[in-house]
Amino acid sequence: MFARPDNLALLTDLYELTMAACYFEYNMFTKATFSLFIRKYPPNRRYFVSAGLDDVLTFLENLKFSKEDLDYLENTKLFSPDFLHYLSNLRFTGDVFAIPEGRIFFKDEPILEVTAPIIEAQLVEPLIINTINFQVSIATKASRCLYAAKGRKLVDFSLRRTHGTDAALKVARASYIAGFMGTSNVLAGRLYNIPTFGTMAHSFILSFDKELSAFRAFSKVFPENTVLLIDTYDTITGAYKAAAVGKEMRERGLKLKGVRLDSGDTPSLSRQVRKVLNESGLNDVSIFVSGGFDEYKIAEVIEKGAEIDAFGVGTKMGVSADAPYTDIAYKLVKYNNRPVLKLSAGKETLVDEKQIYRFVENGRLKKDVIALRHEPIEEGEPILQPVMRGGKRVSPPDSLEEIRERFFEEFLKLDEELKELEPKKEFPIELSPGLRKLQERVTYRILEKELGES
Amino acid sequence: MFARPDNLALLTDLYELTMAACYFEYNMFTKATFSLFIRKYPPNRRYFVSAGLDDVLTFLENLKFSKEDLDYLENTKLFSPDFLHYLSNLRFTGDVFAIPEGRIFFKDEPILEVTAPIIEAQLVEPLIINTINFQVSIATKASRCLYAAKGRKLVDFSLRRTHGTDAALKVARASYIAGFMGTSNVLAGRLYNIPTFGTMAHSFILSFDKELSAFRAFSKVFPENTVLLIDTYDTITGAYKAAAVGKEMRERGLKLKGVRLDSGDTPSLSRQVRKVLNESGLNDVSIFVSGGFDEYKIAEVIEKGAEIDAFGVGTKMGVSADAPYTDIAYKLVKYNNRPVLKLSAGKETLVDEKQIYRFVENGRLKKDVIALRHEPIEEGEPILQPVMRGGKRVSPPDSLEEIRERFFEEFLKLDEELKELEPKKEFPIELSPGLRKLQERVTYRILEKELGES
Repeated sequence: MFARPDNLALLTDLYELTMAACYFEYNMFTKATFSLFIRKYPPNRRYFVSAGLDDVLTFLENLKFSKEDLDYLENTKLFSPDFLHYLSNLRFTGDVFAIPEGRIFFKDEPILEVTAPIIEAQLVEPLIINTINFQVSIATKASRCLYAAKGRKLVDFSLRRTHGTDAALKVARASYIAGFMGTSNVLAGRLYNIPTFGTMAHSFILSFDKELSAFRAFSKVFPENTVLLIDTYDTITGAYKAAAVGKEMRERGLKLKGVRLDSGDTPSLSRQVRKVLNESGLNDVSIFVSGGFDEYKIAEVIEKGAEIDAFGVGTKMGVSADAPYTDIAYKLVKYNNRPVLKLSAGKETLVDEKQIYRFVENGRLKKDVIALRHEPIEEGEPILQPVMRGGKRVSPPDSLEEIRERFFEEFLKLDEELKELEPKKEFPIELSPGLRKLQERVTYRILEKELGES
Repeated sequence: MFARPDNLALLTDLYELTMAACYFEYNMFTKATFSLFIRKYPPNRRYFVSAGLDDVLTFLENLKFSKEDLDYLENTKLFSPDFLHYLSNLRFTGDVFAIPEGRIFFKDEPILEVTAPIIEAQLVEPLIINTINFQVSIATKASRCLYAAKGRKLVDFSLRRTHGTDAALKVARASYIAGFMGTSNVLAGRLYNIPTFGTMAHSFILSFDKELSAFRAFSKVFPENTVLLIDTYDTITGAYKAAAVGKEMRERGLKLKGVRLDSGDTPSLSRQVRKVLNESGLNDVSIFVSGGFDEYKIAEVIEKGAEIDAFGVGTKMGVSADAPYTDIAYKLVKYNNRPVLKLSAGKETLVDEKQIYRFVENGRLKKDVIALRHEPIEEGEPILQPVMRGGKRVSPPDSLEEIRERFFEEFLKLDEELKELEPKKEFPIELSPGLRKLQERVTYRILEKELGES
């Protein structure tokens, strides 16, 4: 089976288990709150798209060490029988507040906060970070492609170059959230009910005697769904052959859906192909392009006057090539009702449980205020929602269509200056008076206690 | 469950299935050979490390459409009942030649060649590319870290930033092949029998009243395996506290294993920490560093005189940040015993079934010759091995230790100039006389037939 987040208890770092063993030996079952946030923007990003929460909640609901897991841990000889027995009964019993999938958020903002006995909250760190970091990176990258395409359609073509099988599925889902119309990935289509697209590859052309025979054969088997790949030998020659097939189909009362270009100088070739098709009265046959597209190349070919109806976007979106990771962190912010933080150089954390308040003016996102969770803030929309209590989801999962609608709605309200491919401006984020005061007090207390002692 | 390559039949692009439906309708069950190769070197790479073959073979051995898969395909209304019936019985029955895992290879060289009825050979394309592209990228990146570390130890810390759960496991395995000593990833430890490492995080320190209490608590629970994280508040203050604990442990007849730094100016801090430890006679306590390391940062801190025994290498290795994909392709090279190729601009393919011959001189890799598979070449070691016949593995999987040994042995023979972090030279690759002649003949034939016709 492919990656399903229901037996991943051991997909954690060894130190989570050694720390857990210490907490266990010292009877430290106290509640802790961890906060997940991104410290800074990756290159050319000034916002993020929330994605991955559903997988995190499924993982937490199903957390359980299997017999094989426990046998393996026993064989490492690191852990006591008492601790292993404790692990055999461990389930996630905590509370989670989170930004719903599809919403826009910004750096330093808590994406998700987990409150649970420290062992539980700590063990799930690697998988929570892994899930959110990746899916946010992809949804954000996909939204940039959407912006660059200016209304043209986008399809996820990344399956063959994503980092493994789990990534292939998650990219299809995350890019669909952020406005793609579908994917080439059939399993993603089945699992997430995402529309799938695709017709033929170069090898199909090569396996027939002649390019024209391949075109005709395909149009006969899939009369409703023929997109002809025309660049196997020469794009313009291919376009004339496609036009011939398009006319034959028209005579049979059918319609050629499109042609695809996968190489060469897109702006010039696409204009020539458009002309060839139009000369045969095939003005409604779409031109589809693929091959190395991302937001930068999409913007470039549109700028150069390419005549394109839809883009297949693969590798560079599927690995978020110019920003394949974020500076994301999952940090202890409260322990035993005491706000805590670490001072490691350049890696400071905002203390305590928090909430984000969003201010909208004239239909535009204006600013966010990060506040203490229970601090009275009069205006603004609270963004973090309670999504899990006592280890159970508070409500059923959002449908993918709801999430996608949520994204479209909020993305429209985001300033163009923040969506530009090389943005200069940053979205204004303020800290509330309560959070600022507490942050100062805790920093002072630590400096006094830890750096004063010897 | 995590990603297991045994029910991934539908993890393919839709066009593979629409092409298959056409082949089926036209009774095209003829044998085809597809060749997998990398067209050009990613930035700063001049060689690749083979990895991923075992997963490919497991996938091929288990290829089978489930009832759920077939029901989904039926619901798309794209496919005929006859074709779906055919798919329900489809298994992979082909032959595979491949470069064994752990070996070095170069651009344009066939990594793997699949010969099978065209429908089978075509359907498995996306997963074969996905698997090899990713694992080769990671093994190659890891080998660059190994080279940069000049004998210091390396541990995979990438779990939290890999692209999903499958990637996390594959990175642990691929980096172990390429010389890492182990991983923090416990599930990878269990599944692949890779050594695991790790002790504590900043949150552990924060959950105790004082840093010193946290250090002491850990050393009591794990007396044989204590590596103290010393940068939560201030690295040098932390080093003095670690030295105190180290001396206490020595008095109890124990030994502090190491300290870890995760932030700040590594060269200067590591030298100061070394001094603090040595002043307490703790010269044998290792210094472990983590935080943003890759081959470039490893080389930089060593160059600046950092005193480091081992590196935790995470994010940038786990996503191969400076080269998160390769220009890999899986192309039809032979169909119905006829060599074929496509001429798409900048994307030419080497025709027919091939073999690589490697020439070694004075213990150094000297050159490779790419030849037709059955062309008589007198010298050189043939690199591609038959690994699957009739859909079954020819021999049991290589053990991970064998693969790792194979890597070490060949990596030693590779010229330093090709291993440099910014290499200038390329490894000499020649085409055999037979391959060159056939390539010209097929190109000429296509130009004549496809571009001459109208």
